[in-house]
Amino acid sequence: MGALNEGRFNVELENGVTLGGCVELGLEREPETVAIEDAVKVLLQGLGEDINREGLRKTPLRVAKALREGTRGYREKVKDIVQGALFPEAGLESGIGYAGGAGGLVVVRDLDLFSYCESCLLPFLVKCHIGYVPSGHQVVGLSKLSRVADVFAKRLQDPQRLADEVCSALQHSIKPAGVAVVLQCSHIHFPSFESAFLESNHCGWAKMLVSSGSGVFENEKADIWGNFLSLLKFRAINVEKIHLRDSADKCWCPSQTTSKIGPANSGMTSAVASILRSLGEDPSRKELLGTPTRFVKWLMNFKNSNLEMKLNGFVLGRTDTLKSTYYDEHIHSELNLSFWSQCEHHLLPFHGVVHIGYIYTEAVNPIGKSLLQSIVHFHGFKLQVQERLTRQIAETASSLLGGDVMVVVEAHHTCMVSRGIEKFGSNTATVAVLGRFSTDQTARAKFLQTIPNSTTTGG
Amino acid sequence: MGALNEGRFNVELENGVTLGGCVELGLEREPETVAIEDAVKVLLQGLGEDINREGLRKTPLRVAKALREGTRGYREKVKDIVQGALFPEAGLESGIGYAGGAGGLVVVRDLDLFSYCESCLLPFLVKCHIGYVPSGHQVVGLSKLSRVADVFAKRLQDPQRLADEVCSALQHSIKPAGVAVVLQCSHIHFPSFESAFLESNHCGWAKMLVSSGSGVFENEKADIWGNFLSLLKFRAINVEKIHLRDSADKCWCPSQTTSKIGPANSGMTSAVASILRSLGEDPSRKELLGTPTRFVKWLMNFKNSNLEMKLNGFVLGRTDTLKSTYYDEHIHSELNLSFWSQCEHHLLPFHGVVHIGYIYTEAVNPIGKSLLQSIVHFHGFKLQVQERLTRQIAETASSLLGGDVMVVVEAHHTCMVSRGIEKFGSNTATVAVLGRFSTDQTARAKFLQTIPNSTTTGG
Repeated sequence: MGALNEGRFNVELENGVTLGGCVELGLEREPETVAIEDAVKVLLQGLGEDINREGLRKTPLRVAKALREGTRGYREKVKDIVQGALFPEAGLESGIGYAGGAGGLVVVRDLDLFSYCESCLLPFLVKCHIGYVPSGHQVVGLSKLSRVADVFAKRLQDPQRLADEVCSALQHSIKPAGVAVVLQCSHIHFPSFESAFLESNHCGWAKMLVSSGSGVFENEKADIWGNFLSLLKFRAINVEKIHLRDSADKCWCPSQTTSKIGPANSGMTSAVASILRSLGEDPSRKELLGTPTRFVKWLMNFKNSNLEMKLNGFVLGRTDTLKSTYYDEHIHSELNLSFWSQCEHHLLPFHGVVHIGYIYTEAVNPIGKSLLQSIVHFHGFKLQVQERLTRQIAETASSLLGGDVMVVVEAHHTCMVSRGIEKFGSNTATVAVLGRFSTDQTARAKFLQTIPNSTTTGG
Repeated sequence: MGALNEGRFNVELENGVTLGGCVELGLEREPETVAIEDAVKVLLQGLGEDINREGLRKTPLRVAKALREGTRGYREKVKDIVQGALFPEAGLESGIGYAGGAGGLVVVRDLDLFSYCESCLLPFLVKCHIGYVPSGHQVVGLSKLSRVADVFAKRLQDPQRLADEVCSALQHSIKPAGVAVVLQCSHIHFPSFESAFLESNHCGWAKMLVSSGSGVFENEKADIWGNFLSLLKFRAINVEKIHLRDSADKCWCPSQTTSKIGPANSGMTSAVASILRSLGEDPSRKELLGTPTRFVKWLMNFKNSNLEMKLNGFVLGRTDTLKSTYYDEHIHSELNLSFWSQCEHHLLPFHGVVHIGYIYTEAVNPIGKSLLQSIVHFHGFKLQVQERLTRQIAETASSLLGGDVMVVVEAHHTCMVSRGIEKFGSNTATVAVLGRFSTDQTARAKFLQTIPNSTTTGG
């Protein structure tokens, strides 16, 4: 093994990832990656963080790698994917009609993808459905429909443009009689730090359904659209109700509607503009003009400041009466307290629900759900890891509730989806047990049984 | 760009896949890959196929790449994945209990993986749940639990050994207080060509639930197992009912129970043994002794022989009366006819249901569901692509049903999961329309409306 190969091997070990028999070619040494790392350091410092603390030390590199891998579509070519995967396939041998490589509609449903919102730089989830009508006696390998869609998903996108680009690329590379694309997109919707304390039942996702068609699907009133949607089992959805290409709806990104954009730290916005450039984008492109400011505004929700006083204010302000959702002799459960947080390893959101159980004795003053919700928000709105969030909530709750406290946090982590791992359905739970819960299995089991089966907020 | 890099670039174009900024290092030129290609050619010839026909020309290479990528776990090290992803994390600041990096249970649920059955070489699906109890004031990055599980999934496996190896590897690399692994495994269960015609309602999946524990999870009766399973929301499942390590259950693989193993083509079994060696396995390992024979026996279900006579035999033998599941004026629908087939591009199973609609007139003799089911099986049991299968079923049905026929095939493709693409939830639909269905949108829509919403066979 020569020196060059050994160098590569070391890179591989550092990354800790080997993908399908290939070794990373030092992505992390490329100037674009280094530039993003530097920009992320500026952002972390803007948040008041110590960039040398253990949990954050490698965060700039992790963020840079995730962003570059997550936008690798800029460096991929559809032609390279489709060529070699077009197969001759006969049509009908006789008779009138359409089948096989001459007109037999092919539909691939429920492809899970993710993309990056060009308006705020956060990843969004895409459930992708593709149909095409073969012509010229050829069909394309089914997996290539997914791979081509991924080329455009792995860029900074807007749902409608994503649908249009996938449709157009498939039309030009396969040259079928027509292509139809339907995308169900889900964009995480964080409340701001301030509004989280005020609004309850905040809706966690902005959703959008878009479609695009070419060839025989060009006219969205064509019969074949009805057949395609019927095969998607979207029977309740009228074709006309799908968001159409030319409608003038405003941007779906929640960052566009929440609070007007005021001034943001210019060093931080410059850093985000530099990230955009490093990804191969033009920060002066119309749709990207406000992106750095929006991203920074959003990030500042997680500023590391002394919020203790703020929490105390809420403690004093909220003296609502006890409304436990569960009461079993001595065990109270407060279930489904929503939380929002930001993973400090990847600067990506994680969110879900918190369940708090405590043992009620005469010495304990029961406290209201809204106070516990405030404690949850207080610890959520910073750079976090779920294990620490769980412990901190338990400790704060314990100081108010007499020491016998159990906390379960259930969460979806964007970093489990929007990186190489791409585990779409996965979710996590963490537990802290304090006082009598740590020795009393019956108490633990009783509390755990009060947690409903589906509490996690799906995409 | 030097000559070496250009060579790599060409490989990349040929593969049509670029993964996260890394370029494949000519996996397809490695001697192991070439050896598998040669073995696959022997298998295709044993099936009576022309290895030079267009759809099969690259099949040996595709199979070789998929198998080597799908068993890349043999070439990965857990230490490389975990090191650099262990983070210091405090436990409780005061008081009695467990939280954070000192005893706070962490659970990652619903990781979708796939593995290869060592008994028959087919991929099986794994829904993986992992729990661990941090100790020593450190936690591991959540995604690493998935990556480590994947190292062992990407090998020839048995569910229990997979669970044990993942558990042991996490215990040794993270050194926590304990690790628990629960796997829900689903193995495709094909009927043989012969039995498919005789059995109706064949169950498509063999399922198995296994668990493994170390440290505080070593004793499967420990309280913490109850807490862990409660967090998995497996409340109906008793811990004792989970398949335990030391129980002497026989192998779960359906190929072990279907038909006794008789002699198989020795050239083909030698070819499979050579594949095992090329993957880095020892074909004389006890669990692998019968694997080549079982794989060949299974593959021979898809032998390209003249089965026309066989079909005719069934046509004559089955004259049961008409039992349409749907009747609308003139349109009959026969729904959910199960099919099993083998993707000719990847030598991997695809299976699902077929729906056949036809227009009934006085000139048409209605035919029974079992005859249509026989037609479906007849066209399914060969090397296929879904588009062709759909057309062939439509053409055969049309010759019996008067020419106005519409066919929808809904399928799950193993090749959409058990390769780099890993799209676990995806499924496909293909359509053929003959005669009046090709011009009458109302007839098409009526037939499509009769197809139930959930007809595809899940994993």
